[in-house]
Amino acid sequence: MARKLKMGMVGGGRDAFIGAVHRMAAWLDGKIDLVAGAFSTNAEKSRLSGEDLGLDPKRVYPDYETMAKTEAGLPKDQRIDFVSIVTPNNAHFPVAKTFLEAGFNIVSDKPMTFDLAEAIELRGLVKKTGKVFALTHNYTGYPMVKEAREMVRKGELGKILKVVAEYPQGWLIQPSDSWRTDPNKSGASCAVGDIGTHAENLGRYITGLEIEELCAEFTTFVPGRRLEDDANMLIRYRGGAKGVLYASQISVGEENNINIRVYGTKASLEWHQEHPNELTVKYQDAPRRIFRRGNPYVSDVAKKFTRLPSGHPEAFIEAFANIYLEAARAIEAEVAGKPIPSDIDFPNVDDGVTGMAFIATAVKSAKNGAVWTKFER
Amino acid sequence: MARKLKMGMVGGGRDAFIGAVHRMAAWLDGKIDLVAGAFSTNAEKSRLSGEDLGLDPKRVYPDYETMAKTEAGLPKDQRIDFVSIVTPNNAHFPVAKTFLEAGFNIVSDKPMTFDLAEAIELRGLVKKTGKVFALTHNYTGYPMVKEAREMVRKGELGKILKVVAEYPQGWLIQPSDSWRTDPNKSGASCAVGDIGTHAENLGRYITGLEIEELCAEFTTFVPGRRLEDDANMLIRYRGGAKGVLYASQISVGEENNINIRVYGTKASLEWHQEHPNELTVKYQDAPRRIFRRGNPYVSDVAKKFTRLPSGHPEAFIEAFANIYLEAARAIEAEVAGKPIPSDIDFPNVDDGVTGMAFIATAVKSAKNGAVWTKFER
Amino acid sequence: MARKLKMGMVGGGRDAFIGAVHRMAAWLDGKIDLVAGAFSTNAEKSRLSGEDLGLDPKRVYPDYETMAKTEAGLPKDQRIDFVSIVTPNNAHFPVAKTFLEAGFNIVSDKPMTFDLAEAIELRGLVKKTGKVFALTHNYTGYPMVKEAREMVRKGELGKILKVVAEYPQGWLIQPSDSWRTDPNKSGASCAVGDIGTHAENLGRYITGLEIEELCAEFTTFVPGRRLEDDANMLIRYRGGAKGVLYASQISVGEENNINIRVYGTKASLEWHQEHPNELTVKYQDAPRRIFRRGNPYVSDVAKKFTRLPSGHPEAFIEAFANIYLEAARAIEAEVAGKPIPSDIDFPNVDDGVTGMAFIATAVKSAKNGAVWTKFER
Amino acid sequence: MARKLKMGMVGGGRDAFIGAVHRMAAWLDGKIDLVAGAFSTNAEKSRLSGEDLGLDPKRVYPDYETMAKTEAGLPKDQRIDFVSIVTPNNAHFPVAKTFLEAGFNIVSDKPMTFDLAEAIELRGLVKKTGKVFALTHNYTGYPMVKEAREMVRKGELGKILKVVAEYPQGWLIQPSDSWRTDPNKSGASCAVGDIGTHAENLGRYITGLEIEELCAEFTTFVPGRRLEDDANMLIRYRGGAKGVLYASQISVGEENNINIRVYGTKASLEWHQEHPNELTVKYQDAPRRIFRRGNPYVSDVAKKFTRLPSGHPEAFIEAFANIYLEAARAIEAEVAGKPIPSDIDFPNVDDGVTGMAFIATAVKSAKNGAVWTKFER
Repeated sequence: MARKLKMGMVGGGRDAFIGAVHRMAAWLDGKIDLVAGAFSTNAEKSRLSGEDLGLDPKRVYPDYETMAKTEAGLPKDQRIDFVSIVTPNNAHFPVAKTFLEAGFNIVSDKPMTFDLAEAIELRGLVKKTGKVFALTHNYTGYPMVKEAREMVRKGELGKILKVVAEYPQGWLIQPSDSWRTDPNKSGASCAVGDIGTHAENLGRYITGLEIEELCAEFTTFVPGRRLEDDANMLIRYRGGAKGVLYASQISVGEENNINIRVYGTKASLEWHQEHPNELTVKYQDAPRRIFRRGNPYVSDVAKKFTRLPSGHPEAFIEAFANIYLEAARAIEAEVAGKPIPSDIDFPNVDDGVTGMAFIATAVKSAKNGAVWTKFER
Repeated sequence: MARKLKMGMVGGGRDAFIGAVHRMAAWLDGKIDLVAGAFSTNAEKSRLSGEDLGLDPKRVYPDYETMAKTEAGLPKDQRIDFVSIVTPNNAHFPVAKTFLEAGFNIVSDKPMTFDLAEAIELRGLVKKTGKVFALTHNYTGYPMVKEAREMVRKGELGKILKVVAEYPQGWLIQPSDSWRTDPNKSGASCAVGDIGTHAENLGRYITGLEIEELCAEFTTFVPGRRLEDDANMLIRYRGGAKGVLYASQISVGEENNINIRVYGTKASLEWHQEHPNELTVKYQDAPRRIFRRGNPYVSDVAKKFTRLPSGHPEAFIEAFANIYLEAARAIEAEVAGKPIPSDIDFPNVDDGVTGMAFIATAVKSAKNGAVWTKFER
Repeated sequence: MARKLKMGMVGGGRDAFIGAVHRMAAWLDGKIDLVAGAFSTNAEKSRLSGEDLGLDPKRVYPDYETMAKTEAGLPKDQRIDFVSIVTPNNAHFPVAKTFLEAGFNIVSDKPMTFDLAEAIELRGLVKKTGKVFALTHNYTGYPMVKEAREMVRKGELGKILKVVAEYPQGWLIQPSDSWRTDPNKSGASCAVGDIGTHAENLGRYITGLEIEELCAEFTTFVPGRRLEDDANMLIRYRGGAKGVLYASQISVGEENNINIRVYGTKASLEWHQEHPNELTVKYQDAPRRIFRRGNPYVSDVAKKFTRLPSGHPEAFIEAFANIYLEAARAIEAEVAGKPIPSDIDFPNVDDGVTGMAFIATAVKSAKNGAVWTKFER
Repeated sequence: MARKLKMGMVGGGRDAFIGAVHRMAAWLDGKIDLVAGAFSTNAEKSRLSGEDLGLDPKRVYPDYETMAKTEAGLPKDQRIDFVSIVTPNNAHFPVAKTFLEAGFNIVSDKPMTFDLAEAIELRGLVKKTGKVFALTHNYTGYPMVKEAREMVRKGELGKILKVVAEYPQGWLIQPSDSWRTDPNKSGASCAVGDIGTHAENLGRYITGLEIEELCAEFTTFVPGRRLEDDANMLIRYRGGAKGVLYASQISVGEENNINIRVYGTKASLEWHQEHPNELTVKYQDAPRRIFRRGNPYVSDVAKKFTRLPSGHPEAFIEAFANIYLEAARAIEAEVAGKPIPSDIDFPNVDDGVTGMAFIATAVKSAKNGAVWTKFER
């Protein structure tokens, strides 16, 4: 290893859940150092957060614009190699734009932007600047999700007929002042934007299927809330497959139960994020098979993203770190002036555009009474 | 026990799956004897089936009309007390009508009739004759389903917000000559008529919710098939709850995986038919609880339909037999000229009408392109 | 079917758990009628029990001796074909002896006798009379247990190295007046005699391994109890395999959790009675396989003892009924004067002797301070 | 955070599994930097391993003695704060002794030493030097294990009657040249030393019970192997509780399936390492409860060692890192000259001595033919 990559962070101050996750994911493999940050829109909170993290105070910034400008002015061997964006949704785009234009690579939380228009603009910027842009649809970082994708690619399921993707959570059953329920910060959707988009991404990652049209029923169960906290959809995929997808934040007692079943003409598969080390494959005329992470029989791609032997479970942080590992591989190349490896495997700006189009389509369908709506492209 | 009830059977000849199930359900508790039958539209097959079953050849009939007429002419202490109808769907109504008019009580397989018009006519006949009519939506016979219903009734889940009912099977992934795929025998629907209607009945039994409108997407995945083999629906219940329901017979590797999740404001429950002795209840702020059949802590109604101590699992036949036990209780009263107990707990002719209306509504929605359609009543 | 078999019962009066199980098992398949009984040592309770069951009062006897004598005096086409013995352990032998000597076939609950000496005497009687003797080690009636045995027989596990058999229950954590804790009725052991012997039988049925010596630690946790309520053992099998076996009735919250794991050089298997429709097979270098009852891929022997398609779960009563089905097949032959089929598959008097020897060996080991003790033969 | 701790490592060169785990555990929370190492007894391999890790070549040492001496000579603000020992067992003691005597704190892999005599000597050294010594019995780092311990401490299980601890693996079913099967490197035991000692530690951590005597049956199933690859034990605890414990490395298809069940007079608990986020609690008269990591209802101690919300699973590395977090807390105090916090929660040198005594007792019992043997103290 030549040297560790230098990471900056925007957002993720004290008490922010997702910022801490990004840091652990970055640190886990010992290849990335956090060296700078603008951790909050509140300059004092940013300063304290940097102090908690043991950073050099000179590199803890009061705002992201100052950070981008200052870091860009540092010698190349000192300045950050990339920035990790972990703010509320409405800031994703302006922060990403600022850092891209300042010459930095980016790892960003999802959904990619506030709306589809921003997403399309961002895609243009990424293409133009040639910088690395990785989007943390972290569930695709799980080895057994990659195994699932390999099975589909190899034709082991035959032709895919049906996809059932569920993402129930219960935490919004109570009124909440989370920014996720604020349309000014979150965008036009809560449940679909926050978690439905993970389910869409997961299904597409595994199957490669593209949505042709969908019918989305949104409900706001908690009085006074301004965005939906539950969304159920029927999906028609290009090529004739059908789908059921739902995202719910009022499903009491559900924690983070994203799961997917993919039904093919030859076999079907089932994966549950809360038990991520197993992938069940079902056949019509043979015993079910349980594929378990870390075994010699799994595919090379699943092995590549595996740190521990079988029976030594890996989980959320390790999967998240797999996104960072791949982003780091691309960023190392970019920093070294080399071409980005063609086999790179992380959600990119195109995935982000598709995700925002998915949200936009669902919102449009729901607003029109849950009618069938062509996928926005 | 004064005496065993005498059962006749229409349908259920050699190799018929569901007829054998009805017989085991009837025999299990030692309260019902099979004494007569018209087991097939083929008189010889009927005769052989009766022989297999050790019946008196005089009471094995070549057709159901002869059976109804002959049995009605026997002295009351010899003739059958009720008939069990286990034919293909298209014969349910004419057989039921014939036996009702000949003065017999009825246990019938589901869906109740060929179409909604027949169902409504049958309801009238049942009301007019005052005979017992039990419909074998057998999944409501499971003790832990009854426990679930009790929990909802007692308010332990709070207000019900969402119901997810799934019924995936895989057996129709191959072309099949089952009568279920023949619209002349099965009716206007395959997947919804055969199994979707169980899911509807199960959800209604547990929650008491009534469907206001639904949006149903039907697909026929196997070429040449004339009815749908996969159906996905969004549901709006009266009072504001939402639902997702699907029935599929092309979900490769799924066996008979009917399951239901009911989400309330205070708690949620989950039940899987393939592991029927457990009911999981989830809370937002307390550990999940697993209610297991046969324990002292379950409700009286679950206890009443339980034969074995906890840990000695009961399953499909026992649940089916619970429908027969309750039907027998009603039939004993009817035969004795007593009023039918008010607490009787089996699916009746009204449930059958609702089930047929559900099928009709789903078919209508699907034919119109999966549009929202008011529930037929 | 020529005719139904006629069953008599000794024991199993009102409120007796196991008698009711035997009756349901006998009735389930419609091949056996209960026609006579001495249901209690209390003549009045016997009479009332017979009344509950709708029996002819003339064939409800005040005691088993009268029953044996009277039934033996009936014409052959009227008298019982076999007797089912469901009394406390201390009566098993005298009842069996009486009915064998009166010319009747027998189905008996386990453990076979009060002690090993009786067991050996009974074996002699059975051989001498040539009657059918079936012992209800019901867990071997489960199709997936038979599947497990087939796998071992076919060598799919390689050489068996280790067996872990557990049977935890919790119901004796409270002081109890069950006859099972009374050494005068139960014999020299409680936990091992009641349930440990099932675990022994299950392991031997699946693997064919014979115990060479064992080391058994008995504990009586509930003060005042006269027999052990918990027993843990190490086992050395002939040929070098090793075993761990325990039986416990004070394992709070355990219901009837008998389970077994068998480890071979090529594969291992795992089966849990509380989820009896699944058999898990594990490999060192391939995905685990879940074999599920009722599928086309299971062995012929598992299919033969299966009534329902996959996904329609069978459970305790059906497994119990499989013992009765096989016993009935043998009894039909015996009654018809034909040789008993050589492929008959139920626990017999030799299994009963081995079971009693197992209990005796464990008791001897425990009394001597849990020392290694040669298996009594 | 004042500053990151500086870690050195002995062992853990290229391809060493456990060294990589220790590094990830140390890095995860961003509080520890790896700055020095003697990664192999092969100086060149050590150098290359240091290069892989991006270390300053001057601090990559050819052997641990040089490392201890050189590091001790560095200014306090530069030298390592502690050393992590991840060598084969036979080197644990000499390395620990060398670094303790050179003034360093220690995190060591288990079993603590090669034999009990070394363990006792090491305990003396730790007490004498006053340095921090943490032993990575990592399974006690899991939050739900800590929850289990809290439940026992609070009396929620009542008096503990029985403990069943299993640790089956399958990886040694094939002949292997792992140092673990070499008595010169591993010590007097393979299965018990490597994994049985984890099971012992886990049981003691949760219950606080001390072993009074045990009866251990060792088997070497793979021909030519010099140490046992399977060990089964019966245990008598002080105070009357009983135990079953086994460790196996030839249980084909088992991965790393350490699990424990603790039975008390009021309730019982069950935990499986391969599904570490759940703790099942069973009652005789109430529904089972599933406690899940990250929920508001878990104890403060479980919360303290939790990084992610419920439903976002944590696993092996996070549990391992919890040992490092607590060790770091103690080391920070030691380095700062402050007293070590009294509530510190990691396995220490006393646990190590008990673990080595456990191994010694089991070996002694097994060598004498699996006889009951008093626990060595």
